Parts: sequence; C-alpha cells; structure tokens
Amino acid sequence: MNAPPPSERGTVRRLPQRASYDEAVIHAILDEGLVAHVGVTVEGQPYVIPMVYGRIGRNLYLHGASVSRLTRQLAQGVPVCLTVTLLDGLILARSAFHHSVNYRSVVVLGTAALVTDDAEKALALEAVTEHVLRGRWAEVRPPNVQEMKATFVLRLPLEEASAKVRTGPPRDDAEDLSIDCWAGEIPLRLQALAPVNSPDLREGIRPPASVVEYQRPQVAYVEENSYVTAD
Amino acid sequence: MNAPPPSERGTVRRLPQRASYDEAVIHAILDEGLVAHVGVTVEGQPYVIPMVYGRIGRNLYLHGASVSRLTRQLAQGVPVCLTVTLLDGLILARSAFHHSVNYRSVVVLGTAALVTDDAEKALALEAVTEHVLRGRWAEVRPPNVQEMKATFVLRLPLEEASAKVRTGPPRDDAEDLSIDCWAGEIPLRLQALAPVNSPDLREGIRPPASVVEYQRPQVAYVEENSYVTAD
Repeated sequence: MNAPPPSERGTVRRLPQRASYDEAVIHAILDEGLVAHVGVTVEGQPYVIPMVYGRIGRNLYLHGASVSRLTRQLAQGVPVCLTVTLLDGLILARSAFHHSVNYRSVVVLGTAALVTDDAEKALALEAVTEHVLRGRWAEVRPPNVQEMKATFVLRLPLEEASAKVRTGPPRDDAEDLSIDCWAGEIPLRLQALAPVNSPDLREGIRPPASVVEYQRPQVAYVEENSYVTAD
Repeated sequence: MNAPPPSERGTVRRLPQRASYDEAVIHAILDEGLVAHVGVTVEGQPYVIPMVYGRIGRNLYLHGASVSRLTRQLAQGVPVCLTVTLLDGLILARSAFHHSVNYRSVVVLGTAALVTDDAEKALALEAVTEHVLRGRWAEVRPPNVQEMKATFVLRLPLEEASAKVRTGPPRDDAEDLSIDCWAGEIPLRLQALAPVNSPDLREGIRPPASVVEYQRPQVAYVEENSYVTAD
C-alpha cells in the first residue's frame, strides 16, 4: 500500500507507523504548506531558516537574494534538509505523557542546485508566486532583468523525501480512562482574515476573488485516512 | 533602543533592519509559537525536525523519547539551531519581485544539554505542557517513574538568539504604483476550532474554559511597531 523509503538516512525510525513515502501524500503536504524550514550546515553549525517555496513536479524551488549568505551557501551545492510542517491540532490526553499534536510534515534531504537556465528560472519564480496565491502571476508585473539578476533560484529534487502524519484522538492508557479530566483535540487551522488594502492603493481597485476567498488547498487524503495508524 | 547581537554568527546579515536582539521580543515570539524546527547535523547532513518546546526564563526545553535518534544526538551536546516562525500575512505587491510575507521568527544557536536533575526535569515537562495549554498540568496525571525514564529532556540556553520581523504593507517601486492591480496584505492567523471530545471520554465531562476559549497569547509589541522599519 505504501511506497518504500527512498534511502537509509531518509527512513523514518521513530514511530515508523506514522511515516509515508507516497508521492501523493508528500506533494499534498508540500502544496498546502506556505513556509519551509531549510537547514544548512556552516562550519559544523546548523542554521535553520524559514523560506517560501514552490513545486514543479518532482522539484522544489527556493529563491533568495543573490547577496544573501544562505542563498550563496545553498547555491554551492551543500547538503540541505527542507522541512514543512502543518499543525492540525492539539491532542490533550488525561496523562501529561500522552499529550501530543496532530500534524503532517515532510522532510526532504538532498542538495540544492543553482538554476542558471533563464526559462527554468522564470518558471520557478512563477511556481513560487503561484504557490502562495493561485492566479497571482498573471496579475502582476513580472521580474525585469535587474530583478532577475538580484534573485538566485535553487532547485531541490524530491528524491529523498518522507512524510510523517499523526491524526486521531488522544490514546490514553486504559487505567487512565477513569480520570476525571477532559480529553480530546483542539483542531487548529491557518485562517485568512479579510484582506487589507495597501495604503497607496489607487481608488477603485478592489481585491480579486482569489484574495477575498483565500484559503490553502484542501487535502482530500486526510479524510481517507488510508495510511494512518495508531500511536 | 535595540539590544546588541549576541555574537558574530548570531548576527542577522540579510535585511538587518528587520532584526531584533531584545529579550522581550524574542521571548514573546517563542511564547506564541507552538512548534520549533530544530536542526542538527549528522555526518555533514543537516536534519530539521519539528518539536514542541517550553520556556523557563532564559532556557528553552525540548523533550523526546529516550529511544529517539534525534533526542540522543541532541543529548550528546552537538551544535543545534532552533527556529520558531509565526506567519502573520501574505504581502501581495504589484510586482512579483516585491511579494513577501509578514512574519516573526526567532533563531537560537547553541548546544543542548541533557537535563539529569529530576526536579528540573519535572519543571521542564510542566513548562512544555503549560506552553501548549496554560493550566493543563494541574488537570492531568503527572508522569510516573517509567514515563520519566522514557523521556529525555534537553535544555537549550537562550544565549545566542535573534528575532527577525516583517510587518506593514507591500513596498512597491514608485513606477509600479499606477499598475491596475490590487495590492495589500492577507493577514493569517492560527485559529483554534471547537474542541472535539475523545471518543472514549466519560459521560458528563465537559471541556474546561481554557480549551473552549483556546488561543495563543496575544503579543502587544506588534501594535507598538517600535523596532519595525521599511524593507
């Protein structure tokens, strides 16, 4: 039912019953997430930095200022870990020990490469913009030559990726069920509030429907629960 | 007005006008966040894993299963980077280039140490639980001896920490202001939905007010905007 792990080091060891290597599961989590936490190591010290990203097929794309230390480090082809976490709920058990969170996360290991082809670079920047807000690319002024020069785009292949998911209620020990304490889940969602016009917005311009009705893509597979197992 | 950076490597280089080293700013972001992304390096490969955490004064506490690879790695005293990111809004400019996100993040560099003192360990687990839901520790069964043994607690001092914050509207180039395109912000919030009872909850037990009215701590300093500057 489940795809095999991509590598030894890319195998989930802790609570492996929560792991999935299915491409559809991994892509859905990456597509719903907005910010990735990207780790690189410089002189033995890891650095973890939040970055937006986009996906085209089996590649993720990151972008950064070409003057940025992190971007330049990534462009050198160093080992990288990119993690996206969606927080779905707080799991409140009757024992402190069984408290948990419901989440969906993806960990990608690999090496990022600097995109030097102009056409791929333009498509990647479109993918990053469209990842944040579908339809936005067609509404805005595209990057000019100077802006393209100021931006590095990096490609990270989804070759060593794993997903980890917890769903469902608390799983208390049988002897704790009689404790006089509420147990359950507080579901959490990333909520978009009403859009705020830029103070310099020209009169008469209204936000498009994509902005007014903004929400992250709904993920159907969560309902199916096909790969979700107990703790 | 602002505290100085704690170290050379702990200094924000990219867009330094967004940086803050003020303890109050750093603590407020850490206290509002729920999940940290923790990076460690193993044989040259960084790994970034989401973890819940708690804070007591100038120390962060992490916990994990004592059988976990990551926990054991951290307990060895390796260099670590812990990053907490709060996503506050999508910044939609008239040019693709000036798209951005409003966020508040904290990056902590350092070395975690295994907590061996039982009293500190118990306080740390209380802090982690209380960080997720204020008041919960007093409602639940505390860890027993076996559970304490199965749990490693790690202390990460907040000695090398920096905050980075972007607020405010898009900052478009002057020549783009005439473009016929909406510009502004879609504010984002982590929203708690109505609590869901555990299926094995005993009849007659209702969720406490802390659960029904759950929200993350409100952060007053964002209103003040004292340290926030332009792009």
